[in-house]
Amino acid sequence: MASQAKKLINDPDDVVTEFIEGLVETYPNLQYLDGFPEVKVVLRADISPATYDKVVVISGGGSGHEPAHAGFVGEGMLAAAICGDVFASPPVDAVLAGIRAVTGPMGCLLIVKNYTGDRLNFGLAAELAKSEGYMVEMVIVGDDCALPPPRGIVGRRGLAGTILVHKVAGAAAAAGLSLKDVAAEAKRASEMIGTMGVALSVCTLPGQATSNRLAPGKMELGLGIHGEPGVAVADIQPVDMVISHVLTKILSPESNYVPISRGNRVIIMTNGLGATPIMELMIASGKTVTKLQLEHGLAVDRVYVGSFMTSLDMAGRSLFMCYYFDGLVLIVMFLSGFSITIMKADESILQRLDAATKAPAWPVGVNGNRPTPKFPVPMPPSSLKAMNVSSSRPRELSKQGLLLEAAIEAAAKAVIDIKDQLNEWDGEAGDADCGSTLFKGATAILEDLKNHYPLNDAAETVNEVGTSMRVMGGTSGIIYNIFSKAVSAKLKGSAISPKQWAEAFEAGINAISKYGGASAGYRTMLDALIPASRVLHEKLDAGVDPVTAFVLSSDAALAGAESTKGMQAQAGRASYISEANLQSVPDPGAMAVASWYRAAASAVKERMSAS
Amino acid sequence: MASQAKKLINDPDDVVTEFIEGLVETYPNLQYLDGFPEVKVVLRADISPATYDKVVVISGGGSGHEPAHAGFVGEGMLAAAICGDVFASPPVDAVLAGIRAVTGPMGCLLIVKNYTGDRLNFGLAAELAKSEGYMVEMVIVGDDCALPPPRGIVGRRGLAGTILVHKVAGAAAAAGLSLKDVAAEAKRASEMIGTMGVALSVCTLPGQATSNRLAPGKMELGLGIHGEPGVAVADIQPVDMVISHVLTKILSPESNYVPISRGNRVIIMTNGLGATPIMELMIASGKTVTKLQLEHGLAVDRVYVGSFMTSLDMAGRSLFMCYYFDGLVLIVMFLSGFSITIMKADESILQRLDAATKAPAWPVGVNGNRPTPKFPVPMPPSSLKAMNVSSSRPRELSKQGLLLEAAIEAAAKAVIDIKDQLNEWDGEAGDADCGSTLFKGATAILEDLKNHYPLNDAAETVNEVGTSMRVMGGTSGIIYNIFSKAVSAKLKGSAISPKQWAEAFEAGINAISKYGGASAGYRTMLDALIPASRVLHEKLDAGVDPVTAFVLSSDAALAGAESTKGMQAQAGRASYISEANLQSVPDPGAMAVASWYRAAASAVKERMSAS
Repeated sequence: MASQAKKLINDPDDVVTEFIEGLVETYPNLQYLDGFPEVKVVLRADISPATYDKVVVISGGGSGHEPAHAGFVGEGMLAAAICGDVFASPPVDAVLAGIRAVTGPMGCLLIVKNYTGDRLNFGLAAELAKSEGYMVEMVIVGDDCALPPPRGIVGRRGLAGTILVHKVAGAAAAAGLSLKDVAAEAKRASEMIGTMGVALSVCTLPGQATSNRLAPGKMELGLGIHGEPGVAVADIQPVDMVISHVLTKILSPESNYVPISRGNRVIIMTNGLGATPIMELMIASGKTVTKLQLEHGLAVDRVYVGSFMTSLDMAGRSLFMCYYFDGLVLIVMFLSGFSITIMKADESILQRLDAATKAPAWPVGVNGNRPTPKFPVPMPPSSLKAMNVSSSRPRELSKQGLLLEAAIEAAAKAVIDIKDQLNEWDGEAGDADCGSTLFKGATAILEDLKNHYPLNDAAETVNEVGTSMRVMGGTSGIIYNIFSKAVSAKLKGSAISPKQWAEAFEAGINAISKYGGASAGYRTMLDALIPASRVLHEKLDAGVDPVTAFVLSSDAALAGAESTKGMQAQAGRASYISEANLQSVPDPGAMAVASWYRAAASAVKERMSAS
Repeated sequence: MASQAKKLINDPDDVVTEFIEGLVETYPNLQYLDGFPEVKVVLRADISPATYDKVVVISGGGSGHEPAHAGFVGEGMLAAAICGDVFASPPVDAVLAGIRAVTGPMGCLLIVKNYTGDRLNFGLAAELAKSEGYMVEMVIVGDDCALPPPRGIVGRRGLAGTILVHKVAGAAAAAGLSLKDVAAEAKRASEMIGTMGVALSVCTLPGQATSNRLAPGKMELGLGIHGEPGVAVADIQPVDMVISHVLTKILSPESNYVPISRGNRVIIMTNGLGATPIMELMIASGKTVTKLQLEHGLAVDRVYVGSFMTSLDMAGRSLFMCYYFDGLVLIVMFLSGFSITIMKADESILQRLDAATKAPAWPVGVNGNRPTPKFPVPMPPSSLKAMNVSSSRPRELSKQGLLLEAAIEAAAKAVIDIKDQLNEWDGEAGDADCGSTLFKGATAILEDLKNHYPLNDAAETVNEVGTSMRVMGGTSGIIYNIFSKAVSAKLKGSAISPKQWAEAFEAGINAISKYGGASAGYRTMLDALIPASRVLHEKLDAGVDPVTAFVLSSDAALAGAESTKGMQAQAGRASYISEANLQSVPDPGAMAVASWYRAAASAVKERMSAS
């Protein structure tokens, strides 16, 4: 395994080059220096150095930290990013080429993370550029708070906080400040930040040797961004405790890494190490804000969350980055974990951080005053509430009210009667609860029918029937509710004609099809409803009397429901059952429809002949 | 293992709630409905529904796809996102609460991914909202191209392309269009997109049972976003071949999922599934662009790269999301892999995609004309080039030129003489190449001294010495080069006084300290240089004659170099060796300085007494 990782490092050009090609395809404001791949420099496409009248800010370093640094190139932030090979400082020639490509008469600030290779390569390039007549300054960032003081010069590494220094310097440069002043702001910003990382998984490829770096149930604290092991390995703890530990380390008055004390205002950056999803970062970030406020007495002015400076893990491996090299599948992976950066905030720094930038990887939408994050759940419009309250059974039922009552009662009872049969059919293809579910709805309807339905108002009554059926839960509860709402909406008005009933019925069917996505022939309740609706319309159009039309259409509903025997289901659980298994079983949903529809038609017929 | 994943699903509220809390802390333009956690709705903080004069666009669905959908809430995109529990459709009440919270008189468009639960819950909420007097339309997105036609209604899932529909609809709404027109644009956009996913790793927790879903060397093609298995499992192939396969599937004329043919203009979205680092996404994206152009004859107008709609993998597990629940460490993880979405482009769609939005997860910097991505590597300023070319040994040497020649020659020869001794010392703490490395530089200096150094120009000669030493490579090559550039810069001008030499020497030392990060006592070459410089200044200030001062300072250099015995190294490889091991060994870099410095001083003294 180790040999695979090594092989990739021997030939990392492909990865970095292909990353840059993807980057410039994505962001038209970016270009790269042709001279490539030896010189890997991403730069703003809009700078003509001869005439550019502002200081340019340049950064860079080894690759394997994407989007850093190339993703932060853009107006208002970096003018160029010098990309080394994976974890290798870029050569002096590349840095010098980048300086020449963008630096105008106002000069150039180099922002360098505190690694010896970067300091020296950028440093020599700076000296060479000066000897060519360029004005060049350099600021070194070491924001790592993992190692206790006293620290060696190698101790305080440059980590994700460097991105905040880029932003401050880039905004100062865009504001037209002199090189001296831009460098001073960058230096001051670098002294306000502290960062610490936590790696929480070193994943392995299934079936391959497990990386032995992290034992089960362990996590690394205070790791860098180059796959180097963390300062400490600890037992996995809930994320709350991990964050408490990290914050205490960064803010420790003993190490005094950052000049932050109780009552100060701060900015935080929660940075993913590459394989950490945004959900996890947001959760970590939310907890960080709360802890800073409650446990450290700090006010949080800005929160930046994302994967800004990631970290390849040379010890691990994933499946995607598989390059065929010497016949081996070469694999690299990024760490899962995050770092937290805390920066002391003041008006000047906030102004720089909030300034507009076109750098694609800089987060947007973070600025501004923070209103209360909660908003009360709104109630339905008051007119409706009043209406809902008044919904109750009228003292005297109209002729239509009596008919409606008879139909609803008969339909509900019919469903109750065939509960066991429906469950049995459902058991052949589903979870045998169709009858029980509809039983719940029918029972609720019979209960509400006694007191709550305003039966003389057909539209409102149908609406209430749907509401009663919400107790069913699940898919069928919602579908019946959708059906009743759509029918009800179409029934608005008094003195409803049979034709209007037929149209409302059709509207309900259309709503089921629209939201449920099924059509005729899909082995659903629609296979009973659609033929019933068609026959009802046909008979009414042909002048058949409405009651007879209703009864005839109920024959069509039953025939349609029976025809679902042998249909292949297209939706729901039954769609996973083969056709052969369903040859002798009708769709229980369709049979339920046939049953309550016929019961309603019969009840109407009976009452009409009785009157 | 499976039981752990199941447990999390039984109690996913924590994850989603904590995500939302982190999100609203990060983005002050977002709020959430208080009524939480039952109702999980993220909404724009700036909409007062009673007076809002534009259509609002609302989306949502199960959680586990972050940043979708809440990250796309913002002016110009979604007005609200309704968040269900992980992979569970949000309940009707949550959708209805969201509609009520933002919908004004212009109405509301619901954009729903094609899953039965979402269709029904959003559908019923739509019908309920309509019955409350709201204008509501709904557009369903199913952009999945993995399953061959004919497809069931469950076949074509809503995937990452949905985000593009959000953007088109959001921009149309922001432009003031009517609900009918916004819905029409959203529907049209939904018909222009095709998406296919590839999962390339299912990682496992070290030491725990390996997920048996993906065997070693396998990948999944055409997977959804809910952890459901892919349509096919194939052998791992290079990323080029994987992308070719995916593009052929999406653009297949047989399935005819998207109306795209040769010569068309397209937009692509390369979407990470959650644990996929930006470097991998950029590489996949760059290759996609090239293949669309060369193999499919399509012009690519826009490229969106990032993790927009991710996918929890319920089968896998990572270390971070460890919730203590019933005494078990509960773990979830996101998939590593990506999906590619292709959308047919036209001016109307580009205008909507390019329109400004405050939605934090929508990518920035993607718009605009695409200039040639390459930019030529700039040459040094032409004046300098001319100067460089003219650099050669003068026919006649001045007195100072002769002195300089003698000093350089002696210094170089001294280094050559102690090569083996330096290697030996270096072997105690490093890789035993200090002598060999300096030997290379000294040899190059002697070679260049014959013809190239303009010896009468001291500044330029010192500069050239540094250039000669670049052959050394590594850290020491750069440090000596930095030293010589800094000395040279200070020497500018003719007739250089001893005092100026001393100041230039000091400037060189400062540059080494600045860029290298070391100081006195760090066991480096500075421990010879710094005492030499101090004594040189002291003696000159005290009126000692310059040659004597030079010789006395070389004694200080040697004493300083000897004092490195027993110093603990603070930088470089030797910093990992304990102090005890270095008690009797001086730092070879410091000893090399003492050696060449004394040789130079002796040569100057000899020549001065001879003349």
